[in-house]
Amino acid sequence: MAVRALWFSDGTLHLLDQRRLPLRRTVLHLRKVSAVAEAIRNLTVRGAPAIGVAGAYGMALAAREGRHTPASASRLLASTLPTAHDLFVGIETVRSAWAEGNDPLEAADAYRAKIVGECLAIGDAGARLFPDGARVLTHCNAGALATVQWGTALAPLRVVHARGQKLFVWVDETRPVLQGSRLTAWELKEEGIPFSVIADNAAGHFMHTGEVDSVIVGADRIARNGDVANKIGTYEKAVVARENGIPFYVAAPWSTFDAKSPDGSKIPVEERSSSEVESFGGVRSTPPGSSARNPAFDITPAKYVTGFVTPRGVLRAGSIARALERYARPDPAVG
Amino acid sequence: MAVRALWFSDGTLHLLDQRRLPLRRTVLHLRKVSAVAEAIRNLTVRGAPAIGVAGAYGMALAAREGRHTPASASRLLASTLPTAHDLFVGIETVRSAWAEGNDPLEAADAYRAKIVGECLAIGDAGARLFPDGARVLTHCNAGALATVQWGTALAPLRVVHARGQKLFVWVDETRPVLQGSRLTAWELKEEGIPFSVIADNAAGHFMHTGEVDSVIVGADRIARNGDVANKIGTYEKAVVARENGIPFYVAAPWSTFDAKSPDGSKIPVEERSSSEVESFGGVRSTPPGSSARNPAFDITPAKYVTGFVTPRGVLRAGSIARALERYARPDPAVG
Repeated sequence: MAVRALWFSDGTLHLLDQRRLPLRRTVLHLRKVSAVAEAIRNLTVRGAPAIGVAGAYGMALAAREGRHTPASASRLLASTLPTAHDLFVGIETVRSAWAEGNDPLEAADAYRAKIVGECLAIGDAGARLFPDGARVLTHCNAGALATVQWGTALAPLRVVHARGQKLFVWVDETRPVLQGSRLTAWELKEEGIPFSVIADNAAGHFMHTGEVDSVIVGADRIARNGDVANKIGTYEKAVVARENGIPFYVAAPWSTFDAKSPDGSKIPVEERSSSEVESFGGVRSTPPGSSARNPAFDITPAKYVTGFVTPRGVLRAGSIARALERYARPDPAVG
Repeated sequence: MAVRALWFSDGTLHLLDQRRLPLRRTVLHLRKVSAVAEAIRNLTVRGAPAIGVAGAYGMALAAREGRHTPASASRLLASTLPTAHDLFVGIETVRSAWAEGNDPLEAADAYRAKIVGECLAIGDAGARLFPDGARVLTHCNAGALATVQWGTALAPLRVVHARGQKLFVWVDETRPVLQGSRLTAWELKEEGIPFSVIADNAAGHFMHTGEVDSVIVGADRIARNGDVANKIGTYEKAVVARENGIPFYVAAPWSTFDAKSPDGSKIPVEERSSSEVESFGGVRSTPPGSSARNPAFDITPAKYVTGFVTPRGVLRAGSIARALERYARPDPAVG
């Protein structure tokens, strides 16, 4: 059975608890919008496209509860995390359906189906970037867990693997939350795709020694000029990739593109609790009384991105604005 | 009392167990060269200059045991780790004294005193690089723990702090062994120098947002042309520093310079156990059956290094060869 981050049935949103992977496979069953908001905040569900779908179903649950308005439910869910643009698109899609008297659950289902379909299209569009024997580096998790199914960065890799091509994936462990070693490694193992987990510090080394052919990552928000907000560390990998002449790709559905951000300078970067840096799997690593900073994202300027893998093909930064006018849904009112 | 990584008394080498810091302050008492070799291999003592001093005292213990020759003891200790050049210098210094009929312990004591003196000189030489209010990034631990006392990269920071200058240090946690969050944070806390620990992934972000004025690191081996072998991740930080116009300094005593390596291409890079990447503090992060790679060092080409902070001042890469002829001791026969 394919990996799925979440699904909805019997008035319940089922979420694979990504905080416990890979050691435990636990599913949470949520029936209230407040519980969905908390699950987004605490990273039970993560990855911008999956967060967007969770937000959409959160709106559908709010409509069933009967004590929320479209606007109040939207505000509650939109306040959870500031960076992932998909969250606001998912919420707004259902809010407008609800406000117009349409079925919120139908709108959420349609939104989920759209995201899954776009991930499949990203897989097809991106596959040609990875020739037989490609050794590909990825950062964080932009797989099925981040997107409901298939993934963004991992979708083209699934496609070339399914075609029988030889493939090897370098997996940045992605401190502090270890989405690479916990989640991407788990997905690749389930698929039978060969990989090695490395400390984030080692990515540059393997680029420099000629053992990385290309890099592909997902995104939390992409500005109109192609500046990319993504998991902390993405910027370093992009700079070092360019320094070594290695192509750097960003894969995302349309919901990740933010037509209202002209560039990356105004994208809010969430700073999370310092405890994520000060400990590892519950084991404290810093001395008592220590201090830590924990920005969860960084901004990679468009000039470091070789191509954007979208449902409509691989685009250069300069083509994003026009593609958004053609293919992306209207800007959300929230966020 | 100042931090000391090791000291020798009553026929015993005392080592602060750096694997247990910062949560436990345990001292190991070693009387055999085989125990010293194991302590070097398992990172009880680490940091190239401190490893060199431990190697020197290991030779002195071997001479006392009575069942080793200078050559056999030298081979045993030199086989522990391949990258840190200081190890071979420390061993060779005592080996040649012993082979010539001089007191090995006196030679080891003299070697320790020389390294401590050079670290003090590095502190004085490097202090002018850090003006009042400097915000300095460091990677791994190149402090007292890495060098017996004072440190290499941390020595100039200790000096400017002691002078009453304002100073802030960004501490890369330095996965996989976390020498930054465990050791550098501990040293800075003991000194009262303000700092924040960050995930290695965040270093580039803070460089890019203008919050890092300069970078200073230690080294495990420096080739004659200025290529630097240092803790994995150093290369990434150096590339991103240059991309952002931030000075990048490497501080080291003469024992770290390897006149026999014309450049970094032939420096052996140790690959350590994948278990260091797959877990922390006994907590596993990757799925069972996962695979990991764990290069412990990387090579930073000389072009990324703004200056080398040596006991004789701050040098450009082009001046290293001549400085070695003047100031460094002859090349070791081992290594």
